[in-house]
Amino acid sequence: MKTIRLIKHLSPLTLVILDCKKGDIESTNRASARFAFTLLGADAVTVNPYLGYRSLTPFLEQKDKGVFVLAKTSNPTSSEFQNLSLSKNHTPLFLHIAKTVSRSWNRLGNCGLVVGATYPQDLGRVRQIAPLLPLLVPGIGSQQGDLEQTVANARDKNNQGFIINSARQIIHASKEADFAKKARIKAQRLNRQIIRFLK
Amino acid sequence: MKTIRLIKHLSPLTLVILDCKKGDIESTNRASARFAFTLLGADAVTVNPYLGYRSLTPFLEQKDKGVFVLAKTSNPTSSEFQNLSLSKNHTPLFLHIAKTVSRSWNRLGNCGLVVGATYPQDLGRVRQIAPLLPLLVPGIGSQQGDLEQTVANARDKNNQGFIINSARQIIHASKEADFAKKARIKAQRLNRQIIRFLK
Repeated sequence: MKTIRLIKHLSPLTLVILDCKKGDIESTNRASARFAFTLLGADAVTVNPYLGYRSLTPFLEQKDKGVFVLAKTSNPTSSEFQNLSLSKNHTPLFLHIAKTVSRSWNRLGNCGLVVGATYPQDLGRVRQIAPLLPLLVPGIGSQQGDLEQTVANARDKNNQGFIINSARQIIHASKEADFAKKARIKAQRLNRQIIRFLK
Repeated sequence: MKTIRLIKHLSPLTLVILDCKKGDIESTNRASARFAFTLLGADAVTVNPYLGYRSLTPFLEQKDKGVFVLAKTSNPTSSEFQNLSLSKNHTPLFLHIAKTVSRSWNRLGNCGLVVGATYPQDLGRVRQIAPLLPLLVPGIGSQQGDLEQTVANARDKNNQGFIINSARQIIHASKEADFAKKARIKAQRLNRQIIRFLK
């Protein structure tokens, strides 16, 4: 809470995405939404789709807040269930979820998708099926996703529409007293690289 | 934390299951496992399987703690993704997850499954595919699952192996000063009903 307050104090226009991966039943999610948006003051959250649409309505019904739904996560065993092929159309589960969010959950225009940089092909498939949704892309930095390929596959037709989320690489840039300076350098370097690959 | 301490103080042998539905990447789950087991002193947790095996190892590798994996949840739209049929064997996703937990994740004998009382047929299918795993069964009470059918479908061949989790019906039994007494009556009544249906 202190961190978010400080961010909003120093930089009121900066948007805060709370990567909380919430995914409980509706009544519990209602309390979590209040906690994330009202109490903490976050502007967006990440949520887990496993419990289905109605469980997530406490987040989805807030038109001024963003909801990034986990589609294809960046971690090592994310394929175990997320890439299972479905009977109906032989689509992998993560792509079916991406399609569902894009075509039916996004009524208020507040949805996005989480897709890891560590699986660039899957990232490209999500971008194809959800051409307009903002993508939150973890996996650059500590998880070693390839930045050039990520930018190529994540951008929309306006050459934007994605947020690269690099956390540990920047936060832990230095363990000495210069940690803030080192983190700033790391963040600026990543930003320049992203812009270069966008050109 | 105070609640769990009080429980352990009043009744040291009572096991505490933290229904936290954790499901982040491995490094974050490692911190959550420390929080749940070491700091809070919980004996078991519920976890979300969407990120796959390795993400959950911080929980699964603790042989003295229980890990209940969400298979088929009790909420209204749980079928949206959980009941999708898979190409490989036309098994619904929740059943494939139940089978995976039972046959490969349960190396230390510390796994269980969450299966809602609100879908008694699916509960029966999980019991068939995972004959030995403890089942944590929400959905009785506020969510109105049928108790007799639940007991019939959830019990193992030793006429045990399941935990019925009724929360709101008991906690909110009364809003007056007699709430503790009323909650006790509700809990005892449910317990008698379960025992009756087990006979």
